Amino acid sequence: MQFLSDNAAAVHPQVWQALRDADTADTPYDTDAISRRLDDAFSELFGREVAALWVATGTAANCLALATMVQPHGAVLCHREAHIEIDEGGAPGFYLHGAKLVLAEGDHAKLSPDAIVAALDSIRDDVHQVQVHALSLTQASEYGCCYRPEELGALTSLASERGLRVHMDGARFANAAAYLGCSPADACGNIDALSFGCVKNGAMNAEAIVFFDPELADVARYRRKRAGHLQSKGRYLAAQVLAMLKGDLWLANARAANAAAAEIASAGGRRLLHPVEANEVFLRCTAAEREALRAQGFGFYDWGPDAARFVAAWDTAERDARALSRAIESL
Amino acid sequence: MQFLSDNAAAVHPQVWQALRDADTADTPYDTDAISRRLDDAFSELFGREVAALWVATGTAANCLALATMVQPHGAVLCHREAHIEIDEGGAPGFYLHGAKLVLAEGDHAKLSPDAIVAALDSIRDDVHQVQVHALSLTQASEYGCCYRPEELGALTSLASERGLRVHMDGARFANAAAYLGCSPADACGNIDALSFGCVKNGAMNAEAIVFFDPELADVARYRRKRAGHLQSKGRYLAAQVLAMLKGDLWLANARAANAAAAEIASAGGRRLLHPVEANEVFLRCTAAEREALRAQGFGFYDWGPDAARFVAAWDTAERDARALSRAIESL
Amino acid sequence: MQFLSDNAAAVHPQVWQALRDADTADTPYDTDAISRRLDDAFSELFGREVAALWVATGTAANCLALATMVQPHGAVLCHREAHIEIDEGGAPGFYLHGAKLVLAEGDHAKLSPDAIVAALDSIRDDVHQVQVHALSLTQASEYGCCYRPEELGALTSLASERGLRVHMDGARFANAAAYLGCSPADACGNIDALSFGCVKNGAMNAEAIVFFDPELADVARYRRKRAGHLQSKGRYLAAQVLAMLKGDLWLANARAANAAAAEIASAGGRRLLHPVEANEVFLRCTAAEREALRAQGFGFYDWGPDAARFVAAWDTAERDARALSRAIESL
Amino acid sequence: MQFLSDNAAAVHPQVWQALRDADTADTPYDTDAISRRLDDAFSELFGREVAALWVATGTAANCLALATMVQPHGAVLCHREAHIEIDEGGAPGFYLHGAKLVLAEGDHAKLSPDAIVAALDSIRDDVHQVQVHALSLTQASEYGCCYRPEELGALTSLASERGLRVHMDGARFANAAAYLGCSPADACGNIDALSFGCVKNGAMNAEAIVFFDPELADVARYRRKRAGHLQSKGRYLAAQVLAMLKGDLWLANARAANAAAAEIASAGGRRLLHPVEANEVFLRCTAAEREALRAQGFGFYDWGPDAARFVAAWDTAERDARALSRAIESL
Repeated sequence: MQFLSDNAAAVHPQVWQALRDADTADTPYDTDAISRRLDDAFSELFGREVAALWVATGTAANCLALATMVQPHGAVLCHREAHIEIDEGGAPGFYLHGAKLVLAEGDHAKLSPDAIVAALDSIRDDVHQVQVHALSLTQASEYGCCYRPEELGALTSLASERGLRVHMDGARFANAAAYLGCSPADACGNIDALSFGCVKNGAMNAEAIVFFDPELADVARYRRKRAGHLQSKGRYLAAQVLAMLKGDLWLANARAANAAAAEIASAGGRRLLHPVEANEVFLRCTAAEREALRAQGFGFYDWGPDAARFVAAWDTAERDARALSRAIESL
Repeated sequence: MQFLSDNAAAVHPQVWQALRDADTADTPYDTDAISRRLDDAFSELFGREVAALWVATGTAANCLALATMVQPHGAVLCHREAHIEIDEGGAPGFYLHGAKLVLAEGDHAKLSPDAIVAALDSIRDDVHQVQVHALSLTQASEYGCCYRPEELGALTSLASERGLRVHMDGARFANAAAYLGCSPADACGNIDALSFGCVKNGAMNAEAIVFFDPELADVARYRRKRAGHLQSKGRYLAAQVLAMLKGDLWLANARAANAAAAEIASAGGRRLLHPVEANEVFLRCTAAEREALRAQGFGFYDWGPDAARFVAAWDTAERDARALSRAIESL
Repeated sequence: MQFLSDNAAAVHPQVWQALRDADTADTPYDTDAISRRLDDAFSELFGREVAALWVATGTAANCLALATMVQPHGAVLCHREAHIEIDEGGAPGFYLHGAKLVLAEGDHAKLSPDAIVAALDSIRDDVHQVQVHALSLTQASEYGCCYRPEELGALTSLASERGLRVHMDGARFANAAAYLGCSPADACGNIDALSFGCVKNGAMNAEAIVFFDPELADVARYRRKRAGHLQSKGRYLAAQVLAMLKGDLWLANARAANAAAAEIASAGGRRLLHPVEANEVFLRCTAAEREALRAQGFGFYDWGPDAARFVAAWDTAERDARALSRAIESL
Repeated sequence: MQFLSDNAAAVHPQVWQALRDADTADTPYDTDAISRRLDDAFSELFGREVAALWVATGTAANCLALATMVQPHGAVLCHREAHIEIDEGGAPGFYLHGAKLVLAEGDHAKLSPDAIVAALDSIRDDVHQVQVHALSLTQASEYGCCYRPEELGALTSLASERGLRVHMDGARFANAAAYLGCSPADACGNIDALSFGCVKNGAMNAEAIVFFDPELADVARYRRKRAGHLQSKGRYLAAQVLAMLKGDLWLANARAANAAAAEIASAGGRRLLHPVEANEVFLRCTAAEREALRAQGFGFYDWGPDAARFVAAWDTAERDARALSRAIESL
């Protein structure tokens, strides 16, 4: 019973079917018929004209998006726990050609306007200090918490006042949208680009970058090729992404994962380190307790010396979630 | 009847099967059981201990390999027609942090020792000119021609004398090995890293970088992550690569493509611009002749104003190749 | 009697005086009173509002200027013999983060509209090939030849049609302006930035970058600091540049150097490889002839196996130039 | 009476003399007779064979040195207040091609072994997190405090155990050496490269990078050119550096600055935020008190809302330091 991560789960049957359906030769790269449907599919989803690019990983999605917004001498403002800072092996430094990450604080890995202002105001407005060009938010956050539409409104207004572009790391955007129950457009707010995650939600190896400013997409297309991310059989990526959108499979899968996490969390009580608003559960527990859980066959990551992280995926079995929930209750 | 490229062909059934077989959750990135078999599989293939990494594209394979050999202030020596110079959207400049490509000449897009010496000797040995750190060869070449083992011996000896590392772009290494009929080890010679192509040969989106110097692989693993190329469900890439190796499917597929190209070439006669030693046919023909071929349903690329390129793939139907051959004969 | 280069000559007395006059503590970097006069001094010189930055070397001037015009995924179009391609140790690759140099041909190291069109049109307009973002011209050219105002007009019109920014490497702009006898504005034409050389013309270690589009200067100020080129005692650089402009010392020095070169060239006749329009003389001569000249005490560089380069500086003694002229005559 | 910084002070008369003495044409770049004396001069100073390069700024010195030790996918560990992190406009990101700065804590801007271990141990040893390749220490620290030889011994031993190279930012190394009273070799300890500051200590625009591992210097020479920092009249930089070393002018100047700072600090008492061990005084004082000091003609920087920074230079007049000291006493 694995709760290590959603990032290595199986591929959803509808994604498999879409992959098979793509198995006839077509023109290469993103000129094939399937890839050419991406813009329209996302424009419909967000209710406005957008440009969308497929790419194989979330790290590439985040960094390609940011590279269209941040000059090499600038910086991205993000949370101290942001994936781009902690877990992308320095990819932002590579893709942004040495631009900096300026770190801000905030509970549950969420940024607040105050934290952003504090970080910005600590930077002297001169050439000796690196100036911030863009803001990066993670929805749902690295601790599985969601920005509400009104929170996003406040953050993007602030960004606009300060002349910052806004990127959203949506590796688990589906889980956030499912939790919030609002429209996709409201779940991301007035941003410039969204890394729309699929891999953690039932795809094999395709994410989408959605550009709300299509001019940025024009730059991103060159950068994607330059980064070796323009696959020649791109139709297999496009097919995965479209399969996720079709019939709102992305929301269905996310709801399933969220429900499993909620089931686990229901036993968490005061052990919970963060509200469980997506598919991740961070639980205070001792080494002995973790040992006990593992002895019962549960797989998960330690989260520092005093906690554990459990992640539910689209295919987490209900009974497994219930079993874990009971095991936690019995600790 | 498409002869545009081998880079958008369908996926081979054995690759599909391997993908399906990989569809159970495992640990992420390259820690899964399938990925962990890559080193051994390639060590066996090449008869010596190597380290192998999967990656999604040939551009990424080439550039990640070169990035382990060339410092940012250095250069790669390659043919003027090399894919890394012509068709990778500046990826070497990105991955090598501004290192230069020094271009040399040679018939059929193949480099000779003389051409390399001429290029090296045109560079003053001082800090004002960029010094060459590595040599990149393409096997089969961009014009579908193969370096013989003895040619490789001369080139790698020269590289060694001059203190250069050697990389081989093997996007069509399978076609070269099939043509040469020698061992894989002899088909690449004494090099440091090989981009072992699979996508043009029946895979969906997986290539391998084979490091003959395992220390370089240690660097490449960091660089792969940093480039956003470390897929979390890496097992689906590893599975493709292993499927290609299993039972020498890679050679069987390449032989089929080569045979189709030979069939086409058999009608080429004095029209042939380059010897046909792999799966590409470059043919002298007028615009009117190309028009005539297209009118008969053949798809292919113009190659400048007076020529055309036809590429056969692993799944090119024998009858299609024969039809094209006859059509060429009738021009 | 040295004719090796103008790049290591002594410092002009008026520059020394300006340096001494700057020797009272002021605010650091470019906030001092002298640095703050640079914009006005160059605005007056060019008859329009410009922004000017001091920097220590021509390589830094060229690359900082280009970095404001060319995105990392783009290219600079320049002559095959351009200093940025040949003699800057890969600095453009560093400053432009891996952007490419696209090379074009032209007699006397000068570009023509036809050569530019040919180079541009050889690049497919897709993401697989690196697109040109800017044009770089050298005035006077690397072979000491000058673009006429009407030539510049044709080149900058073409650039504008093709959406390219234009940079001018003016390491010897003074020599060109002195030769052309036109206004400084006409000697550079309608460009975006000029590397205004001083070091080869009597300064110690200061050049200026003149931005005709002040928005580019805003970027360059950050990039200059980021490149470690923002000297804290910047007033000593500003003082050198202003000393060059004061009373048109820059033109007087250039005229002296040009006159010495003309004196040398007067004996060149059919030996001359290029018209002598600035302070450089390229002369066809055998190894034995070069030997003979060196035996008479003349210092200069070989220029390939069959030629020599002689460079006059602001302080080349008239009698030395005459002596060299006679020695050439006697060959 | 300026105490803003030592970075904009006048040039010492002996440096002026050396500059004038260099005013005869010689071969360019670093091939002239003066530049060629640098290695020997520093080898003598440090009692072992070293290689030394001149460069115009401390930022360039720091970053060129670090670029020889840190791969683009690695990181430098430094203090949170280090100049390379705070005040170099992102130059490390540029020179190190996106490598990261990992920040550690420590009183008085000094690092301790414990702080380093804590920072290193917070990084998972996998490709998802950026690994540290080098340690950078500042001597004297950004708060004017000095590492003792035994402290350096502990730090460099730790670095060696952990496989880290060590760089020292010695913008005020002279002040540290003067304070410590030990040999230059003991004042830097067992490191790989030292940015040996001159500009803040009486030079115009020359620093030296001293490489204790000469192989690193070979790389640095290429990188210096590539960064546009190889001045063609390099002899004027070499002359400044040698003038600083001659007769230990560097120590004499530093002692004068330190003495002035000590005079100022003598009135500081419990206001002092840091021990005064070099030429900087950080003083707790209110806005009103700062106002009062400025009204008496003292120039200095605010240091946050509740403090001020006073820096003495080599040419700070004794009576000015005494006047400031009295004024502080009277607050």
